[in-house]
Amino acid sequence: MDFPKKVTIVEVGPRDGLQNEKEFVPTATKIELVNRLVDAGAPKIEAASFVSPKWVPQMADAAEVMQGIERKSGVVYAALTPNVRGLEGALANGADEVVIFGAASEAFSQKNINCSIAESIERFVDVARLAKEAGVLLRASISTSFGCPYQGEVPIESVLDVVKRMQDLGCDEIDIADTIGVGTAAQVYEVMSRVTDIVAKEKIAGHFHDTYGQALANIVASLQAGISIYHSSVAGLGGCPYAKGATGNVATEDVLYMLHGMGIETGMDLDKTVQIGQWISDQIGRQNASRVGRALIAKCAA
Amino acid sequence: MDFPKKVTIVEVGPRDGLQNEKEFVPTATKIELVNRLVDAGAPKIEAASFVSPKWVPQMADAAEVMQGIERKSGVVYAALTPNVRGLEGALANGADEVVIFGAASEAFSQKNINCSIAESIERFVDVARLAKEAGVLLRASISTSFGCPYQGEVPIESVLDVVKRMQDLGCDEIDIADTIGVGTAAQVYEVMSRVTDIVAKEKIAGHFHDTYGQALANIVASLQAGISIYHSSVAGLGGCPYAKGATGNVATEDVLYMLHGMGIETGMDLDKTVQIGQWISDQIGRQNASRVGRALIAKCAA
Repeated sequence: MDFPKKVTIVEVGPRDGLQNEKEFVPTATKIELVNRLVDAGAPKIEAASFVSPKWVPQMADAAEVMQGIERKSGVVYAALTPNVRGLEGALANGADEVVIFGAASEAFSQKNINCSIAESIERFVDVARLAKEAGVLLRASISTSFGCPYQGEVPIESVLDVVKRMQDLGCDEIDIADTIGVGTAAQVYEVMSRVTDIVAKEKIAGHFHDTYGQALANIVASLQAGISIYHSSVAGLGGCPYAKGATGNVATEDVLYMLHGMGIETGMDLDKTVQIGQWISDQIGRQNASRVGRALIAKCAA
Repeated sequence: MDFPKKVTIVEVGPRDGLQNEKEFVPTATKIELVNRLVDAGAPKIEAASFVSPKWVPQMADAAEVMQGIERKSGVVYAALTPNVRGLEGALANGADEVVIFGAASEAFSQKNINCSIAESIERFVDVARLAKEAGVLLRASISTSFGCPYQGEVPIESVLDVVKRMQDLGCDEIDIADTIGVGTAAQVYEVMSRVTDIVAKEKIAGHFHDTYGQALANIVASLQAGISIYHSSVAGLGGCPYAKGATGNVATEDVLYMLHGMGIETGMDLDKTVQIGQWISDQIGRQNASRVGRALIAKCAA
């Protein structure tokens, strides 16, 4: 087994994790979450989304969150920017990286945003240009890269096509995301290998969901394809994995436990992350969805 | 990635899974569980334990279970046999395979059975001899092969030493077990590679627990080391993964989902197994611990 000796964790809990919470999470809690994760060593953190509060009310305080967090030098604070207005908000509030997105599944694109994949990416041309002009990092997230709730299988060619389009927009980093968590290891290895045939592997990130429990196995497969950037969400924030419409982001704690066990450096502190995971779970009244979090807390209590 | 195209699942739910249940599971339920798992295609099933009911009251009906199940030709019905008396019970009740065991951790052996590893295996000499004379399959399970709750790290040399001793007893199959679920992928790959240097890889099985969520990742690593036999427990039976003393066997459904997704044959039917997992969870009043089981049931309900 061959794999990178160092991995960059992109902590997505504060944005991707919290965005579907029905109950509004106080701005102070969001700020504390970001600050504590950075204190635990998170090198890059998805802190907010500059989307219309009509669509995602949970992210209505994006500006306040970005303004309220303590900035640590060297850490990348990222924000989701669905359009030029969102980009302007992100820039005005000091985002270091902005995130655009598209689906690899045509059916998903049509059902979710009523347009083709090509059209959806076309809409990001101005966002991408303005981001580059502003000198911030530009990242693209490609959803449903391993399967789609509407069309089922997603051809690798579709993933590669979207990757190329995102590359053409000047993206510095591209996330290959398993939005519904259906991918398995051999497929993931193949997709990642094909993607890294056309983009430098240092620019590719794996974003896996644990809905079917496959996330860590898929990270092992991706590591072997040379991928060294992974998204994860503290305490597995991102919807209850048992519920309909569950998102089930892989828990940061589980990823850290595995990577550290494999001798791979992340720069993050597992124990601190476990504490943060239990704290935020308590704050939002959810069961801690990290197996490592639960196991280590039970072990301490025993 | 290179891996076997066919895998044998050893379903351990009825024995390893149920043995720690406090509430006695009715004999008829145990029999139905075995029969249904065989109907779902399980090629080998750990059906009972011929241990003193003083130690494991849940297995007190081992003879009745073995007598009550419908036998399907070609299926291996296994039973745990801690001593000669257990072996006699297993043979009298038609076990096709008997299972002996030892720890790879000296501290675990001392704490659990008050003797050294070497002494503990010495005690199985008669069991092994009688099993071979009776013409049944002889399997050995080596616990704490990737970590120990008492001594922490377990040297690979200790695992290899126990493997050799079990080989000397004439074992047809040897399970390398992560009793407390602490192993990670690179370590698992190394241990499995070293073990298969001294024993044919067709004789080695991987037994992983999901306490830290690592089981599927560890199976991916083992597959790459050429291991093609895996233990799993329907619905993840084997103790609540959230509780102290949790065992947390990897769920058969999760393993099947991954292997089938990788194009690996198991001969088992995932949908039937998901139904069985939910049924037995309901019978014993536990949350279904299989992520795949929960996700597929939620999907059907939606």
